[in-house]
Amino acid sequence: MQDIKYLFEPRSVAVLGASSKAGKLGNTLVSNLIFSKYKGKIYPVNPSGGDILGLAAYKDVADVPGEIDLAVIVIPANVTFEAVKSCADKGVKFVAIITSGFAEIGNAEEERKMVSYALDHGTRVLGPNIMGIYSAAARMNATFGPGDIASGNVAIVTQSGALGIAMIGKTKVENIGLSAIVSVGNKADISEIDLLDHLASDANTRVIMMYIEGVTHGEQFVDALNRTSKIKPIVVVKSGRSKRGAMAAASHTGSLAGEDKVFDDIARQCGVLRAESLQEAMEWCKILSTAPEPVDDNAVIITNGGGIGVMAADACEKYNINLYDNLTDMNNTFSSVVPKFGSLKNPVDLTGEATAEDYFRAINFALSNNNISSILCLGCETGVFDPEKFASRTEELYFSNKLQKPIVFSFVGGARLEDNIHRLKSEGVPVYNDVLLATSCMGAVYYNTRQKQDYAPELIDIPIDDKAIQNVIDGVRKDGRVFLFSHESQRIMRAVNIANPVSNIAHTLEEAVKYAEQTGYPVVMKIVSRDILHKSDAGGVALDIDNEAEVTDAYEAILQNCRRFKPDAVIEGIEVSEQLKPGVETIVGARRDLSFGPIVMFGLGGIYVEVMKDIVFRAFPLNIREANRMITQIKSYPLLLGVRGETRKDIDAVADAILRVGTIIKRFKDISDIEINPLVAYDHGDGVKAVDVRILLSRQEAAK
Amino acid sequence: MQDIKYLFEPRSVAVLGASSKAGKLGNTLVSNLIFSKYKGKIYPVNPSGGDILGLAAYKDVADVPGEIDLAVIVIPANVTFEAVKSCADKGVKFVAIITSGFAEIGNAEEERKMVSYALDHGTRVLGPNIMGIYSAAARMNATFGPGDIASGNVAIVTQSGALGIAMIGKTKVENIGLSAIVSVGNKADISEIDLLDHLASDANTRVIMMYIEGVTHGEQFVDALNRTSKIKPIVVVKSGRSKRGAMAAASHTGSLAGEDKVFDDIARQCGVLRAESLQEAMEWCKILSTAPEPVDDNAVIITNGGGIGVMAADACEKYNINLYDNLTDMNNTFSSVVPKFGSLKNPVDLTGEATAEDYFRAINFALSNNNISSILCLGCETGVFDPEKFASRTEELYFSNKLQKPIVFSFVGGARLEDNIHRLKSEGVPVYNDVLLATSCMGAVYYNTRQKQDYAPELIDIPIDDKAIQNVIDGVRKDGRVFLFSHESQRIMRAVNIANPVSNIAHTLEEAVKYAEQTGYPVVMKIVSRDILHKSDAGGVALDIDNEAEVTDAYEAILQNCRRFKPDAVIEGIEVSEQLKPGVETIVGARRDLSFGPIVMFGLGGIYVEVMKDIVFRAFPLNIREANRMITQIKSYPLLLGVRGETRKDIDAVADAILRVGTIIKRFKDISDIEINPLVAYDHGDGVKAVDVRILLSRQEAAK
Repeated sequence: MQDIKYLFEPRSVAVLGASSKAGKLGNTLVSNLIFSKYKGKIYPVNPSGGDILGLAAYKDVADVPGEIDLAVIVIPANVTFEAVKSCADKGVKFVAIITSGFAEIGNAEEERKMVSYALDHGTRVLGPNIMGIYSAAARMNATFGPGDIASGNVAIVTQSGALGIAMIGKTKVENIGLSAIVSVGNKADISEIDLLDHLASDANTRVIMMYIEGVTHGEQFVDALNRTSKIKPIVVVKSGRSKRGAMAAASHTGSLAGEDKVFDDIARQCGVLRAESLQEAMEWCKILSTAPEPVDDNAVIITNGGGIGVMAADACEKYNINLYDNLTDMNNTFSSVVPKFGSLKNPVDLTGEATAEDYFRAINFALSNNNISSILCLGCETGVFDPEKFASRTEELYFSNKLQKPIVFSFVGGARLEDNIHRLKSEGVPVYNDVLLATSCMGAVYYNTRQKQDYAPELIDIPIDDKAIQNVIDGVRKDGRVFLFSHESQRIMRAVNIANPVSNIAHTLEEAVKYAEQTGYPVVMKIVSRDILHKSDAGGVALDIDNEAEVTDAYEAILQNCRRFKPDAVIEGIEVSEQLKPGVETIVGARRDLSFGPIVMFGLGGIYVEVMKDIVFRAFPLNIREANRMITQIKSYPLLLGVRGETRKDIDAVADAILRVGTIIKRFKDISDIEINPLVAYDHGDGVKAVDVRILLSRQEAAK
Repeated sequence: MQDIKYLFEPRSVAVLGASSKAGKLGNTLVSNLIFSKYKGKIYPVNPSGGDILGLAAYKDVADVPGEIDLAVIVIPANVTFEAVKSCADKGVKFVAIITSGFAEIGNAEEERKMVSYALDHGTRVLGPNIMGIYSAAARMNATFGPGDIASGNVAIVTQSGALGIAMIGKTKVENIGLSAIVSVGNKADISEIDLLDHLASDANTRVIMMYIEGVTHGEQFVDALNRTSKIKPIVVVKSGRSKRGAMAAASHTGSLAGEDKVFDDIARQCGVLRAESLQEAMEWCKILSTAPEPVDDNAVIITNGGGIGVMAADACEKYNINLYDNLTDMNNTFSSVVPKFGSLKNPVDLTGEATAEDYFRAINFALSNNNISSILCLGCETGVFDPEKFASRTEELYFSNKLQKPIVFSFVGGARLEDNIHRLKSEGVPVYNDVLLATSCMGAVYYNTRQKQDYAPELIDIPIDDKAIQNVIDGVRKDGRVFLFSHESQRIMRAVNIANPVSNIAHTLEEAVKYAEQTGYPVVMKIVSRDILHKSDAGGVALDIDNEAEVTDAYEAILQNCRRFKPDAVIEGIEVSEQLKPGVETIVGARRDLSFGPIVMFGLGGIYVEVMKDIVFRAFPLNIREANRMITQIKSYPLLLGVRGETRKDIDAVADAILRVGTIIKRFKDISDIEINPLVAYDHGDGVKAVDVRILLSRQEAAK
């Protein structure tokens, strides 16, 4: 395959559909390449030949002398296949298909044909349905968007071309420099995964921003996010928060939460920063591309007004910023700059008497104290606060190259203040006219530092009995089913060493009595028949069976009831199981998700998941720490810790069960859904039991 | 009392502490009054007399000829009392005490003295610790803030003076005109309540914005919010979201949620718009002060890009904006302007081909369709979209005076677009550079319209037996207790007609048997003794009592156990009660809140309230509709509706119980806390039962 480097640093670019007519996309593209002072060779291609913006046009891509690293295709959809073919035949490394009118409007067949021809000839495809690609490394603006893109260290990957073009403009306005912007469109071949791998090692890129509408190749995408976010911050805007469905299909577990909740949980697991709006994403990119990393969790708020200080403290709670609270140290640090009626506690209140100089004395004290890791500098404009002086002192500090801690500024006031804020912003200083936004940005900085520190990518390697599982699967397949009988599911539980109730299937009364004695009374008896799914309705269940006489009665009754209920039912036998002690009911599930590949879920049983939607998802890699984090992340977690006099439940055993269920779904592509509901958690040390287990196989064609 | 009108439209203003020295607050004040072209007479007062900014200064307020409607006091704290005294003696209607150094720093005594002297003489007090007052009606800038305030139709009431001054500047920058800005500071006399009443009827004011740190006189405040919000939108920023405590004190109900949750629920009940930041509050004020009210709930999104349309649809869900979904009507309305690959569904996608003209064709179609009540017009800058044309067409539409529906705009793009957006914004057009913010503003418009339509201020008038309740209270008081025994609490339940378990106190075995037979078996028996609070621990409880013999056994056993447990315990008797059927456990509580006065709370029993924090609060007026809304607002509501095969519970009876508990706390100041936990809800039609009721009396001094 082609080295993705040549997509970002091609030595030559051909434009198929280049035009001499201003206003045409094929004209804008050539003009943008020229205007951006692209480092390599530009080959306009147009059947009419001639001169295009001072360059001689080739009538056919085959006529171009020498190699072509990138061909941008901007011609009508009905002739695009031919163009791709000629590029592939010529040995072009990459084609970027601007043209739309393929899978996005239902024309998937043409797209597939085009891409497979290209791939067969070693040509990789960006698009179709894109706005192009810009790469600062090659000074290449191969887009039909604005010509002047400011170079910098933020890379943007966007699924929407229209938004990509708008963001080129917007980043310029917001003073964000770009290392690259790539439109992925229909992702017929190249997707975010390829791009993340490149951008992770790209020296020009410090922050990656992505606009995503839908996820494809979820498993590899999750891997790529995980790897890349440990190297560079990834800020994601994903639309479709409110859209349910899509995956509601297959399993019950699947329908418990909208797709967006799954995305949200997995994004957090991967250390991705998910912004709620484009504006927020851009602000985060800006600060993440410049701010130093905080060394620990202790922030200070410096303010000249109580009200605004409290608003910042509120916002710090929202964005998980820990306020430094060593009172003695705070006193020692700030006492000389805080007047009598100010506050030495966090927020540090310099009072309305504070001048710009006072602020900078306080800031310098904070900077020299190694226990303080970041500063939120806030205030109201007052008669004694000089915005010009504040701005010039801020510039001095900010551009001194000595700033080793993250700092954000936010001030409320009139036109003079706003003008200065505006100037500072345009110079790249993290100053905001809203306390909430300033704190959100500082929160992004902390989030990113923490997610890297927290990461422990040990993979699970849990010894399970693969052979036993495969045997069960083979048996079910042979039987032409996709659902597993209870005893089959329980056999899989035993194969992965998740405790389950002792249970045997009796085919005669004598066996039933034998199994009951082996198990120990009381026992539960249940009909086993593929023709009877709702066992209770059929009278196929008996509880609280205490002795041999009751076993005999129950055995007869169950058979009689079921025969009456459905005379032609094939009865496999009667299951005799131990009767369980009560405990806290949890649900552990796993599925092969259409978007994300293998994922696991956890929640407390019944109402908590179904009504309260108190549920959490994870993708891989999964380890014991992440499984424990899942458990602590649900709101009903205190029930496992023990509330109202209850004892603590066996949380370790629950985490272990989550990992084991995850291991099944990860290793066996034949299995599409697992749900243990309930997995009963007993007191600490007493383990868990998988009481009811539902397992579904993938449809055969999907399992390939 | 003085007519508050003279605070906003004084015919004369004296400035005590007026100064000729530039930079002094007393100088800024006089200068601001002159600069704002204040309509009335200005009397500078300074012991040295002389000339202050061209006005002759009086040495003493007593020397001022004629009446003074408002005296602004800006002198040191230690001489402020004297100044207030002289104003009161002179018969000044209002004093505004700028000076700080009173209750806010612990000097409450001086403040109390000052205010009571004033009030005794008919003088009302604004402050102390304020930045002054501005009123457009009198062209009076009696603040020490910026001199140039743009007049308009937004009134600001702020608890923080510093923030008040900063907001004067900020509103000017944001192009928000003010009808008034009043700083209330320590609220020693005049609070938000007085001001809301005035602003509700003030013809110049269309929207009221408030910055609140703490609530005082909660009951009247809630009343004022309720009344005023039906006339004018109230936008509130309240800091201290993250602060817990304050009210954790007294009752268990009180400690269940932070104060902020109570504020949040009550604000929503009152129809107040609570903004999360100052910036959001200002944006809301801006649109609410100009936009027409939507006639119903059907919004349309008009966009030129799928991505941005989906983001807007996400935001509409967040801000409760209903998207119009009559496909036939949508088709008829927009088909001529939506190209082939666009979308006629909501969001209406004009595609990237849309020109500014296309947008306005679509907007005009939407405006002419009576089923569509509002428009969100969004997009990305494209090659064919001309920002200048868009801006001029927007101006035409917006200033035509024919716009009868609310509309917001949001576009993403480069400098040319941003410049146009900037210009439109400065002209007051609701255009935003963020989709989320645009939708939040439209959400504010809908919220305000809905809250007015939803309001039904019927007061509760539930016949309860006041005399019986008073008798219980008197008995408890006489006994020197503040807590009620179970049978006393149950007597109160009977007085308000909330069903409770049949229960009698037996003093002899014969009585116990008699009551058991009357009640019907099975019964429960419990010790009654003020000396034994944990009845079970003492062996003072017996369940499942099925016949006379068991009553006899239980009676003897309970007495014996309790005598052994605490030999000197005074035993009042043994309670014999019916044994209850299971149902859904709810909690209904009420308390006299320090900040908000009488409030009620509701949640599901046990875990749901304690662990899941699934709880809701309300103040008065409370009616059956509001009580029902409380019930539907909790997340665990489906448990009452019946999930997983359960039947619907008696929700009407729960709502009725909430009202009755509310009625007690509202009418009996002697009672501070009520908690029914559990109030068991039975199947629909079978009512509720108050199983365990805890009632506390107010401490005597508080009950006055």
